[in-house]
Amino acid sequence: METLRDMLGAKGVLTTPGDMAAFLDDPLGATVTPPRAVLRPGSTAEVQAALRWCQSEGLSVVPQGGLTGLTQAAVPVDLDKTVILSLGRMNRLRELDADSATATVDAGMVLADLRARAEEAGFYFPLSHGAVGSSQIGGNLSTNAGGNNALCYGVARDQVLGLEVVLPDGTLWDGLRALRKNTAGYDLRQLFIGAEGSLGIITGAVVKLRPLPVSRATAFVGVKTPGAALKLLHALSARMGGTVAAFELISRGALDAALAHTGMRDPLEAPGAWSVLIEAETASEAMDLGGLLEDGLAGAFEAELIQDALLAQNEAQRMAFWKLREAIAEALIRDESCLKSDTAVPVGRVPEYLEAAGRAVDRFLPGVRPVPFGHLGDGNVHFNLMRPETMPHGAFRGHWVALTEILAEEAIRLGGTLSAEHGIGRLKCEEFAAVVDPVSLRIMRSLKQALDPDGRMNPGVLFAR
Amino acid sequence: METLRDMLGAKGVLTTPGDMAAFLDDPLGATVTPPRAVLRPGSTAEVQAALRWCQSEGLSVVPQGGLTGLTQAAVPVDLDKTVILSLGRMNRLRELDADSATATVDAGMVLADLRARAEEAGFYFPLSHGAVGSSQIGGNLSTNAGGNNALCYGVARDQVLGLEVVLPDGTLWDGLRALRKNTAGYDLRQLFIGAEGSLGIITGAVVKLRPLPVSRATAFVGVKTPGAALKLLHALSARMGGTVAAFELISRGALDAALAHTGMRDPLEAPGAWSVLIEAETASEAMDLGGLLEDGLAGAFEAELIQDALLAQNEAQRMAFWKLREAIAEALIRDESCLKSDTAVPVGRVPEYLEAAGRAVDRFLPGVRPVPFGHLGDGNVHFNLMRPETMPHGAFRGHWVALTEILAEEAIRLGGTLSAEHGIGRLKCEEFAAVVDPVSLRIMRSLKQALDPDGRMNPGVLFAR
Repeated sequence: METLRDMLGAKGVLTTPGDMAAFLDDPLGATVTPPRAVLRPGSTAEVQAALRWCQSEGLSVVPQGGLTGLTQAAVPVDLDKTVILSLGRMNRLRELDADSATATVDAGMVLADLRARAEEAGFYFPLSHGAVGSSQIGGNLSTNAGGNNALCYGVARDQVLGLEVVLPDGTLWDGLRALRKNTAGYDLRQLFIGAEGSLGIITGAVVKLRPLPVSRATAFVGVKTPGAALKLLHALSARMGGTVAAFELISRGALDAALAHTGMRDPLEAPGAWSVLIEAETASEAMDLGGLLEDGLAGAFEAELIQDALLAQNEAQRMAFWKLREAIAEALIRDESCLKSDTAVPVGRVPEYLEAAGRAVDRFLPGVRPVPFGHLGDGNVHFNLMRPETMPHGAFRGHWVALTEILAEEAIRLGGTLSAEHGIGRLKCEEFAAVVDPVSLRIMRSLKQALDPDGRMNPGVLFAR
Repeated sequence: METLRDMLGAKGVLTTPGDMAAFLDDPLGATVTPPRAVLRPGSTAEVQAALRWCQSEGLSVVPQGGLTGLTQAAVPVDLDKTVILSLGRMNRLRELDADSATATVDAGMVLADLRARAEEAGFYFPLSHGAVGSSQIGGNLSTNAGGNNALCYGVARDQVLGLEVVLPDGTLWDGLRALRKNTAGYDLRQLFIGAEGSLGIITGAVVKLRPLPVSRATAFVGVKTPGAALKLLHALSARMGGTVAAFELISRGALDAALAHTGMRDPLEAPGAWSVLIEAETASEAMDLGGLLEDGLAGAFEAELIQDALLAQNEAQRMAFWKLREAIAEALIRDESCLKSDTAVPVGRVPEYLEAAGRAVDRFLPGVRPVPFGHLGDGNVHFNLMRPETMPHGAFRGHWVALTEILAEEAIRLGGTLSAEHGIGRLKCEEFAAVVDPVSLRIMRSLKQALDPDGRMNPGVLFAR
């Protein structure tokens, strides 16, 4: 440990319970195994030194970003001989190249900081989600985070041109290319993105920047059914010329939870069984997005697709709509037994999934209260569940595993996935093992074996033991 | 071989020189080693049967699509004990799901057919390039093709939601998911895309469809320098709200070759040293793209960024601009010693690359005539070279390897790549070995070893022997 302190400095190696506490505080309350140390390298070279040291000591490594993930991927659970390696001190914007519209960043840069720095330079980094203020870009990439505007800009995976990774033995893979087109060999970037730190540690990335939006149009819309919302999505997608960035479906139950949590009033006078929060944005001064959206919604009203709609008249009203959307997650986290789900299905099958999943969970546990909400445009509606009104929290938590499996099975039956944007981590690896097809699993294990033969990189994530 | 004929039928197994000839006709004239057979399976199950048979016979397999690639990836060269496996009989559109805006296709479907079938259903499949009429979707994915509108829609890799692959031992990996968000384990899709058939054979894919453009605006523009063209690109990108689909830079030499080849006249009255072909497209009825582009170009003219510009007034004029653009490639292919280059650099460094590469090749071979053209918006300007006027074709071909290396080195020095959209294949594998960094190569070899331990999948591509 002294060797390591010489290399990383005193603030790079934490070993006392007090110093380490902040790094063991999983957002979903996982019971964390105390690691040997929390390492906080300040540079890529220090990450290399740390991994060489871990190899020589036979220690496993759990990489950690902003500790906002929802699948226990960034904390050791039931793990012996391990260290946490936090990227938080590596938080520099290394370069912003306006001529190429790219940014080269340290993995530990907070997502909101990257967005802000891009904006200062007249650019837009679109990736955003509930944890934008504290999650780090490296964690976002390792999880392949999605968020609210993937419909328009894609997921984390789609933002990356180049990557820098330290391999398990401390070797540096320098894939920091700022290329829009490159087809020279296998795409190593995409192998490490979404790998949850199980193949190496992402230490830096080159990301695409886009022109900064100059106008937005935002509406809160009431619809009778998810099917009607889907038709509205298709109608607006074409009409709005690729500017629809968010299309968030919200169930009555989820909206009521948010209204109760915030004390806000329902934005609509004629509230529907379902609501949709729609936002379009453009970098073109010449597009009248508000007019386009208003006309589109008027047409949808005439076609009886929607029941009511309110266009944000100013930034304050827009922020209120989004506050309500974000309050759903906050309200449900406050409910100590609310089950978080992250399934996705093909976009066109969301209505069918919502019905089928609703029937399946109710059959298993009559009275269970679905509070689905999320990204209809990506097929990723979080089918969260609250306990039956008379059931104690503890008893409901006892049903979590079975309910989660039911939701995953229904999603997979419709061509879907058990994890759309939260990853597998340690929380879902048993479930993943239960539903993943054997050929996929065999290939994934062979890749793991090829890149991390000792199995020291974030053991316990992805693969059930 | 009889067993195989029983499985694939008579038209699925070709063995006579006459029957096989069409499958050995490499577009760049490679000297092909006659294979044992050309296999033409008609279904994924038949591909599995064929690969199991090849394994038992110890035969290598060269997968082949439309045979339009420019790097000899689809024909055996210096290869013993091999078969060609052509996907051409697997050319069905398996499903078009309008509600999810996706299509599931056989790998052997011709790119133009996919685009046409999508259009019939009111959708757009944007991928397009010079070989759109005969290349197959599986080949496009295995090469990670780019083309003229990657600026707006991304490369082949970016069009894919799901993939179906037959592994070297005949096992089927069914990754045919139509999911916009999925983060359950490693991204196996992206491993096979761009792998040039060296890890398995792509037999099917789920691709994204987009709303069909309803209007386009196209302009032919004269500029003094690539730097000015780059500034124009950035100015228009923001102003046009993400609708700029093509931004093709054309050197004087490339344009002159196309004019001579077609007998057409220069579209501009005041021709510049460089031209740019710009096209914007949108699915929104409400966007006046022509007006936007005209205003943008007027502004650029006032700012002295451009010298002259002509907006296509009708579809015929638009087609004429594109005919000229496509004629460049045709004209240069007619020149029997013209060297095709496919480097890319970060977008902002294209002007610097064009200058530096020009100086370097002229130093090596005074009088050599660069005729660069291509996709400025992607950093992928093909720096093609014609022989010095007095040098015989054969002598110039003798310099190809050295010149290609010079171009690759200059590109890589500026953070670029030797292959932007054509792949490595057999043609560039020595060159790739010379410039690739050892860590990338080590990882790529370990992936190859993990998935194709016997090395029977398209040996000779990517990795120099």
